[in-house]
Amino acid sequence: MDRRSFLKNAGVGTAATATAVLAAPAVRAQTTTDMVIVATWPRDFPGPGTGSQRLAKRISDLTEGRINVQYFAAGERVGAFDVFDEVASGNAQAYCSADYYFKGKNPGFSYFTSVPFGLTYAEMDAWMKFGGGQQLWDELGDEYGLQPFAAGNTATQMAGWYNKEINSVDDLRGLKMRIPGLGGDIMSKLGVAPVSLPASQSYEALVAGTIDAAEWIGPWNDYFLKYYEVAKYYYYPGLHEAASQLSMGVNKSWLTSLSKVDQEIIQASCMVENAMMTAEFNHNSGIYLDKLVNEHGVKLRRFPDEVLDEMGVAAEAVFQTTVEHSDLTRRIHESFVKARADLGRWMLLADTGYTEQRNRVLGITV
Amino acid sequence: MDRRSFLKNAGVGTAATATAVLAAPAVRAQTTTDMVIVATWPRDFPGPGTGSQRLAKRISDLTEGRINVQYFAAGERVGAFDVFDEVASGNAQAYCSADYYFKGKNPGFSYFTSVPFGLTYAEMDAWMKFGGGQQLWDELGDEYGLQPFAAGNTATQMAGWYNKEINSVDDLRGLKMRIPGLGGDIMSKLGVAPVSLPASQSYEALVAGTIDAAEWIGPWNDYFLKYYEVAKYYYYPGLHEAASQLSMGVNKSWLTSLSKVDQEIIQASCMVENAMMTAEFNHNSGIYLDKLVNEHGVKLRRFPDEVLDEMGVAAEAVFQTTVEHSDLTRRIHESFVKARADLGRWMLLADTGYTEQRNRVLGITV
Repeated sequence: MDRRSFLKNAGVGTAATATAVLAAPAVRAQTTTDMVIVATWPRDFPGPGTGSQRLAKRISDLTEGRINVQYFAAGERVGAFDVFDEVASGNAQAYCSADYYFKGKNPGFSYFTSVPFGLTYAEMDAWMKFGGGQQLWDELGDEYGLQPFAAGNTATQMAGWYNKEINSVDDLRGLKMRIPGLGGDIMSKLGVAPVSLPASQSYEALVAGTIDAAEWIGPWNDYFLKYYEVAKYYYYPGLHEAASQLSMGVNKSWLTSLSKVDQEIIQASCMVENAMMTAEFNHNSGIYLDKLVNEHGVKLRRFPDEVLDEMGVAAEAVFQTTVEHSDLTRRIHESFVKARADLGRWMLLADTGYTEQRNRVLGITV
Repeated sequence: MDRRSFLKNAGVGTAATATAVLAAPAVRAQTTTDMVIVATWPRDFPGPGTGSQRLAKRISDLTEGRINVQYFAAGERVGAFDVFDEVASGNAQAYCSADYYFKGKNPGFSYFTSVPFGLTYAEMDAWMKFGGGQQLWDELGDEYGLQPFAAGNTATQMAGWYNKEINSVDDLRGLKMRIPGLGGDIMSKLGVAPVSLPASQSYEALVAGTIDAAEWIGPWNDYFLKYYEVAKYYYYPGLHEAASQLSMGVNKSWLTSLSKVDQEIIQASCMVENAMMTAEFNHNSGIYLDKLVNEHGVKLRRFPDEVLDEMGVAAEAVFQTTVEHSDLTRRIHESFVKARADLGRWMLLADTGYTEQRNRVLGITV
């Protein structure tokens, strides 16, 4: 995912704000507090959008309306990428986004969404909740007056759609690919020419031949963009972006002004949505993967070792900037690297060892 | 895990009950409702016990004490495996347990904890929340006046500790192994003699040579039983028990007598604990796996294909009983099989494909 994909919906909509305020109930107990949530996601965008809307409703429900939540999708109040400043300044109380969009403010933010060769969602959850990740995120958020919470995850992402088979690094050279951010930086070192383009326009660009490949999320979201009509090879693994953890960033001085129970309900609601969205992505990925392969003839391919090895070399450079930025980002990086090694060893024999052998014995194959 | 492991702590403690009741605050708002939770887990048992205690506290906190929770560990009020009847009868309001302990009442319950060649925790979560699993569990619980919620997960389990290497099915023949339940049934078809023994006594049995192998949970819990001192080979994958989902079973007529918000808070608290416990198991498994290998010289081994294939054949028989039991259990089985296939295909290339290649490129190995 990238910033530009959402920008087309990101016009400021002050009219929507006014309507929402007027529509609020006229009679209300004195203890009601307004919570304006601004989101990076377009309204009803499957996964991140629908999940964030569900989170907003849950906070309202579990506080019995003591917190009066008003949710604004991208462009309904501020632009998709203005949400951070809107909340840091206190104009809104919380944002729903992905913190790597704010790496321009501090490169440390990327670690709490996704970095190349980063953590799977289960590893991220373990690092955040028990491995010291949340404390480091707290410290980073605090520099901007924010309290960050994990509030969703895309689950594992794919490497992208190609209109030809990739059997070597040579096959990548000169390909024009819609791939944003750090993923684009990495692929450019392998000879790919990254093209910056909203995801919604990449289908037409593939048809027109102005790009040869495109990366978006995974089977569920990709299905609706109809990539399968124009690029038959669907590659994995997505080492440039494992799984993206989404966030709710809350204005800290507003949050700490609430009662203890309301603070706890906001945190618990974020934890619930984090699990819900992950489960929803996995469920739908399974179903849409089947449709792609069996109804649309999509060919699944694993990148050859050579390509993955080169991506690994390219990814190293990405981390250098972060490590050198500040004491805090160095500590984030070190904590992340330790979590990745400890959890990575366990996952290799546990989850991976299990799934691989269960599927082999039962004949469950893609 | 098995029933007998907890039985030593399962004496009925009526004195404890009386004390807890007397210790409740004398002054209380009229709307306060008592919620007695009885658990299968011993007090402070790492993971299932500590997690269930954390869940009890969260329900109390998020309802600001409107629900006055009294938590009784195994034997503090009723025996470890009497919790189901205690709640179904209305003597207590909820239990914390693992529903496969109640397969004697209905074999369908196993599917909502763990079955051989079953779902990983991420797959289970997807099936429960979006694949129709929860609705089927609701239907099953309803037959007993219970509303079940997922409220924890052990994450992926190991296959067990052996005092010699297993290179073929022949190597298993005649081995005496502490392995309970369906896992024991399966291993017995491969020539193993399953021994029923509380986990706490299996270390001494290995020392005495009365058993040659033992199965418990994973690196975190197994570490404390010191198996590594007497059986150096730690086997995976645990195809007999993937990952066990724990449950909170709530008396349904009590639950539906509560306000809507309090019902939602109980459900949300269970979802939070489900994610917390999974993350805690993964975090600790990574750390204790490292200790086992690097401080105690444990040798990790994958079962050979031949052994896993034979386990697959043996597992088929397990399901036959369930399918033939009733219309509901047949529907549970069919829904489970579909989820396992859809999710299994996706996980193979997504989570497995990612972890395997990330680890290979970075040299993260066990």
